[in-house]
Amino acid sequence: MANGAVPNGSAKAADPEATNHFSANNLAPLDASKVTVTLTKSPKPIPPVEELVFGQQMTDHMLVATFDPAHGWSAPEIKPYGPLSLDPASSCFQYCPNVFEGMKAYLGPDGEPRLFRPELNMARMQRSAARVALPPFSPSALLALIKRMVLLERRWIPRARGCALYIRPTIIGTRPALGVSASDHALLYIILSPMGPYFRTGPKPISLLGVCDAVRAWPGGTGGYKLGLNYAPGFEPQKRAAQKGYMQVLWLFKEGEGRGLEGLKVTEAGAMNFFVVVKRADGDLDVITPPLDGTILPGLTRDSCLALVRAHTPSTRALPALPPATRVHAHERTLTVADLVRWYAEGRLLEAFGVGTAVVVVPVGRIGYEVEVAGKEEKEVRDVLLPEYEGGYGPVARALWERVVEIQEGRAEWERWSVSCEEEA
Amino acid sequence: MANGAVPNGSAKAADPEATNHFSANNLAPLDASKVTVTLTKSPKPIPPVEELVFGQQMTDHMLVATFDPAHGWSAPEIKPYGPLSLDPASSCFQYCPNVFEGMKAYLGPDGEPRLFRPELNMARMQRSAARVALPPFSPSALLALIKRMVLLERRWIPRARGCALYIRPTIIGTRPALGVSASDHALLYIILSPMGPYFRTGPKPISLLGVCDAVRAWPGGTGGYKLGLNYAPGFEPQKRAAQKGYMQVLWLFKEGEGRGLEGLKVTEAGAMNFFVVVKRADGDLDVITPPLDGTILPGLTRDSCLALVRAHTPSTRALPALPPATRVHAHERTLTVADLVRWYAEGRLLEAFGVGTAVVVVPVGRIGYEVEVAGKEEKEVRDVLLPEYEGGYGPVARALWERVVEIQEGRAEWERWSVSCEEEA
Repeated sequence: MANGAVPNGSAKAADPEATNHFSANNLAPLDASKVTVTLTKSPKPIPPVEELVFGQQMTDHMLVATFDPAHGWSAPEIKPYGPLSLDPASSCFQYCPNVFEGMKAYLGPDGEPRLFRPELNMARMQRSAARVALPPFSPSALLALIKRMVLLERRWIPRARGCALYIRPTIIGTRPALGVSASDHALLYIILSPMGPYFRTGPKPISLLGVCDAVRAWPGGTGGYKLGLNYAPGFEPQKRAAQKGYMQVLWLFKEGEGRGLEGLKVTEAGAMNFFVVVKRADGDLDVITPPLDGTILPGLTRDSCLALVRAHTPSTRALPALPPATRVHAHERTLTVADLVRWYAEGRLLEAFGVGTAVVVVPVGRIGYEVEVAGKEEKEVRDVLLPEYEGGYGPVARALWERVVEIQEGRAEWERWSVSCEEEA
Repeated sequence: MANGAVPNGSAKAADPEATNHFSANNLAPLDASKVTVTLTKSPKPIPPVEELVFGQQMTDHMLVATFDPAHGWSAPEIKPYGPLSLDPASSCFQYCPNVFEGMKAYLGPDGEPRLFRPELNMARMQRSAARVALPPFSPSALLALIKRMVLLERRWIPRARGCALYIRPTIIGTRPALGVSASDHALLYIILSPMGPYFRTGPKPISLLGVCDAVRAWPGGTGGYKLGLNYAPGFEPQKRAAQKGYMQVLWLFKEGEGRGLEGLKVTEAGAMNFFVVVKRADGDLDVITPPLDGTILPGLTRDSCLALVRAHTPSTRALPALPPATRVHAHERTLTVADLVRWYAEGRLLEAFGVGTAVVVVPVGRIGYEVEVAGKEEKEVRDVLLPEYEGGYGPVARALWERVVEIQEGRAEWERWSVSCEEEA
């Protein structure tokens, strides 16, 4: 039901000035130099790596800063990790103007904590916040605060290879009123969680079920932004996929009616970007991912994988783990279920994998898709199967995974992608 | 970035039983008879009706109940209104599995608090919760709790005509972990806010700007459910419409390319359902609203208006305010910008109005739409203008508005739509 669509005094809404909450010049910017620190009196024991479950154990401290339309951003405050206290009418619960980023801190061989291309996370978070009309913030101030938090919590960064400290900067709307309008109050916070290795017992390819009745993102929608609200609609389809024996959803987008598998565009896999590797007639490999058409999250790992494939030639060896004779070509192009089926039938579909911050690169072993079968009421699920490789990863996925991780961990230098937390932002 | 797409131990996700958090038989249901009550020691003064701003002043108490996967629903607790305390990693902030309803309580002429078709709100909330994989609840238990809250807060129901106590039942996901998966913890709460009259200085028609670059809802999306996450993406387009001098957005959905205004389907207006009244060649009136194709919220006021128009014949007089000779025909059919423009050009577009719980019925005076003009870079905005009526409302909008309000307030009986809070659920 419409609620407060035109609240009392709504004539003001036609006044452009009145709608721009954030135009006043005297609002305090987010300022990392103003941070205050209150340390916990009871530091927690660090859990052993083998007991870590993704995103469940939090470090000792959190950082918070608040925005109100009269003063702007408050002085950031580092304090013991604990609950947030919020009015039940707050926008974050009612209308969901909530944005986040996923980042990781790694211990370099020098023992220095490092971040991976963090300026891209900051820029994306700025775009995400603007998309849901949250107040603007200084990306360099936020990055400085993240570095400060990582340095403070450095004892929490796991030392084991492939482990990291996961970082979750979040901004939520906190306007405490039920009228449907932009949140002129906000709460920014940073929480951190130590991560164990993604695969406990060695990498295993995952299975995906193509889903097109529930749609993750749409042109003109918000799939290209990192908004919390993009995720909850995926929970129920994910459960249905699991009930059919698939681990994640392959999000499809149906374009046009009656085009069958040709009209089913592949977009993302679970909460990851999706890649395939296809063998060409000349023996070279095409590495393909869908283009950033507004339905695809512009992932950092996606961008990094594309850049490494593009830079890989026999002379630069951007991907040292690939055999020297292997030539790879990166493509951002529309990918359909019909493409996957045809390449599989022709024996040319060599690899499929998902990429993202948490997983880095995860191989896909099986992709289910539903087809209507003449004379049957229920759709049938057919599978596209990927070749099996020793150790789970195909050669391109393995080369990307190893390369990205060694750059992240500071064991290899590439284009200044890995940034020390001790450096000034 | 993908985050926890396949968290550690994710093999479990392929086990159907493991994914159905809510299948255990021994989970406690939501039980209204278990409610505990702690009254405030400092009741607030009731604000005068003229000082009320929609959704900003809250009553003295709130009701909360929690769900956890080991025990089910807790005993509901009525306690003084105050902040919620939640882990920063909670789903409601990170992935937005948050649902709500908008309802109103009215004082009948007998002084008894009444609700309007509340069983429809309960059924919709149940569907909404299932869509984002929140735990199920008993709709009749929730309704009993809402009635209990209204009776407790009855001194807050404004007595003036057209005023009401706004009720906001809300369920949010509270799983305190960052892995992207369904929230197996939830918090249900009910808050109440007294509402003044919608128009302070007499009804005035609102203006709408047609928007198609940002899309509110899409087939396979969540526009047909009452989810908090449907609203934040509208804040920024709403600001842009206001900057162009329009009070609300008319949400359009572009179907196919190159079809011009014919391809622009009208869906909703701001956070309201949208209606037009068109004069037919035979002098009868067509009352038209878009069909429930998954992109339209199934609004209670929408449904009530359609039912009243359908029931109105010169003999039943479901709409007493319409002149006896007026014949009206309700239609749920696709509505395009081209339709509006054509009917306007032909002088047949008599009324446009938005409907919703907060506003009931609000007249529309002007609808802007953007067109590409040969030789110009910027699109031009053209207006469809609606006839002006004394008192703001056209005859159909006025008849519906008056009728719905008199049924809501218990001044007229219709199909048992108005329900006393003293009745057993």
